[in-house]
Amino acid sequence: MKPQTMAEKILSQRSGKTVYAGDLAVVEVDEVMIVDSIAESVIKVLDRELETTPKFPERVSIVIDHVAPASSVNVAKSHQVAREYAARTGVKLFDVGRGICHQVLMEEGLAFPGAIVLGSDSHSTTYGAVAAFGTGMGATDIALAAASGKTWLKVPESVKVTLTGELNAGVTAKDVALEMIRVLTADGGTYMSIEIHAGDRFTRGERMTLANLCVEAGAKAGLVVPGGEILTDYGYTVPEWVYPDEGARYVTDITIDLSTLTPRMSVPSYVDNVEEVTTLRGTKVDQVFIGTCTNGRLEDLHAAADILKGRKVAPGLRLLVIPASSEVLEQATADGTLLTLIRSGATLSTPGCGPCMGRHQGVLAPGEVCVSTSNRNFIGRMGDKDAKIYLASPAVAAATAVMGVISLPEDLPVIA
Amino acid sequence: MKPQTMAEKILSQRSGKTVYAGDLAVVEVDEVMIVDSIAESVIKVLDRELETTPKFPERVSIVIDHVAPASSVNVAKSHQVAREYAARTGVKLFDVGRGICHQVLMEEGLAFPGAIVLGSDSHSTTYGAVAAFGTGMGATDIALAAASGKTWLKVPESVKVTLTGELNAGVTAKDVALEMIRVLTADGGTYMSIEIHAGDRFTRGERMTLANLCVEAGAKAGLVVPGGEILTDYGYTVPEWVYPDEGARYVTDITIDLSTLTPRMSVPSYVDNVEEVTTLRGTKVDQVFIGTCTNGRLEDLHAAADILKGRKVAPGLRLLVIPASSEVLEQATADGTLLTLIRSGATLSTPGCGPCMGRHQGVLAPGEVCVSTSNRNFIGRMGDKDAKIYLASPAVAAATAVMGVISLPEDLPVIA
Repeated sequence: MKPQTMAEKILSQRSGKTVYAGDLAVVEVDEVMIVDSIAESVIKVLDRELETTPKFPERVSIVIDHVAPASSVNVAKSHQVAREYAARTGVKLFDVGRGICHQVLMEEGLAFPGAIVLGSDSHSTTYGAVAAFGTGMGATDIALAAASGKTWLKVPESVKVTLTGELNAGVTAKDVALEMIRVLTADGGTYMSIEIHAGDRFTRGERMTLANLCVEAGAKAGLVVPGGEILTDYGYTVPEWVYPDEGARYVTDITIDLSTLTPRMSVPSYVDNVEEVTTLRGTKVDQVFIGTCTNGRLEDLHAAADILKGRKVAPGLRLLVIPASSEVLEQATADGTLLTLIRSGATLSTPGCGPCMGRHQGVLAPGEVCVSTSNRNFIGRMGDKDAKIYLASPAVAAATAVMGVISLPEDLPVIA
Repeated sequence: MKPQTMAEKILSQRSGKTVYAGDLAVVEVDEVMIVDSIAESVIKVLDRELETTPKFPERVSIVIDHVAPASSVNVAKSHQVAREYAARTGVKLFDVGRGICHQVLMEEGLAFPGAIVLGSDSHSTTYGAVAAFGTGMGATDIALAAASGKTWLKVPESVKVTLTGELNAGVTAKDVALEMIRVLTADGGTYMSIEIHAGDRFTRGERMTLANLCVEAGAKAGLVVPGGEILTDYGYTVPEWVYPDEGARYVTDITIDLSTLTPRMSVPSYVDNVEEVTTLRGTKVDQVFIGTCTNGRLEDLHAAADILKGRKVAPGLRLLVIPASSEVLEQATADGTLLTLIRSGATLSTPGCGPCMGRHQGVLAPGEVCVSTSNRNFIGRMGDKDAKIYLASPAVAAATAVMGVISLPEDLPVIA
């Protein structure tokens, strides 16, 4: 048998036949995730076109996160449709404030090694953090998967990303992810599986950041190879069949030496437009946003709080912190992180996607500059087409919030 | 000299001549407060019609609270206009997350006994809690006051509300305020000063609740007579000339025996449509909102937390808690209140007005029922015209959140 990539291994196992890139695979789906902004469309397909309900309602989640709490009557109506559907069919509902879909599914244990997770959100590659084959699909495909409990996929080609060396202090998984996108470019992984060989480096949250960004290279999936005890330490069982084979075929093979990396940012208005923060220092910033499925976890808030502790947000700059989930909010409240952030002048909003897609809670005006820990900086993404978005790690975002201009943590005056 | 009401006393002192109801008074204005949703209009009048800037910029505040953080590009643009105006003219700016205008002005010491405070928000009667003559005005009057540092007022007639007896356990200032509006009716105080003789009862926050609701009877101002050491304990100086004279003339004189009151609610869709909670028990509720300038203070969150501690929000009900200010949020975080609320299943949003006016952060869908600690339950106020709003105290709101239906704290099962 020819050696297989991780995507080939998982899809072979789950389809019950040996498949390689280019083959079609029909697989059982472990979880179908539907977000509020597309729920009405999915429900319409199920009700009116397919005239059926989910085959396994217990494997379907609706998460109200994209515009939550509702910002308008129309949004409120769409939430109502989602709630009524959940009540009617028994699918799981994660309502306003529970958090961002990907974070919630991870917390609820609905993504796990070898699982197939389909989400109606492009950043569903995130589940690759725990060696789940996660991918985003549109309303019709999502509805079909919910109705049948299965999906069909063309097995993707794979890109191998090997990480070597160790990160220097102040350099984070976000910087690695941005570097990866820079090297691969925005379409360098189109309909491919990006397989990240990270060894035993990185926490589950950091792996989520890496897998999350894979879609910004166009990837179908972003799979972080389990290494050491990382996943078992979180309580996951890692089946042997998720690991890629030695000698598997990759269309692209890149290596990133972590020890050479410095903090970086994705600069307006393409995610693969990545520069070192040192070259951007001094750019005036209006809003800093710390949150999202990319970097809104407890460890991200810790990184921000480490920098903000005893310091104040710069006058004229707004620092918006939105925990990725109610669990993150609770933990950050319990361990004092939230108090540190609030005392620094940060403001909060409801766990969920926040202003990431420019639909509420911090939409940008023309000419405004935002440093965000999110994953997209396209023109108009967070509001006006003349606003500018720089993507960064929580540490760089926090340092920028204190200085009022793009800054590195090392630029901060030492606290007496 | 004929005896004077509190409004007549304050307006006489501040206009430099003895005035009575019906007279015109020109007074110096201590603070002009402008909220985000009307800031552009006020600025337009100042820039284009009056072609001037505020005479005393240090006496003008812009508070970004009504839709904060921005929910759309248009809202973001209006915030931008407000920020640029503040930078250009030196008026004070309280940006996203600082909190609700009335709470912020109070915390900043910008309302005080005998002060004249004009706000571009109808609930500017709130400042009467500290014996300030606070009133709401439209964009043109606000702009004129900012430009000149003065305003002219027809001295209002006054209504005397005397509170006697003591509240029973579980009955709050909100219930007193709702009872007052029920008795006076929605137009029973039109262009009048409602002068509340509360003795030494009630905290500053509770007095804010009382003064806040006065506008729901149509009042020009709602003045709570300072009693005992209440205000001096908060650090205010109370000049002799703020107190009403014995024998002053009131067009209406009512007495409320606090010992007879029970918890009550304003039921859809008029604020003066007040009923006892006992008659409403069992009504199914979709959303509970604890916050606003009426009841979003630390003591309100404490009241809610007392009930929610160790309990869970009912399945299918959303509990939204929005602290009235960053200070309230910080204190509630520091003292553990926030953790209690979050653990019960409450979600949070940015300090500010929240969904009170149905512009974001919890807009209601058709047919939804909301119990809110706010001050208005008009048709369409919080979203769809077919949504229903019940106004209640934080304690009743919290009990309802646990039970899923309108409930009193006494209805809750005892925690083992």
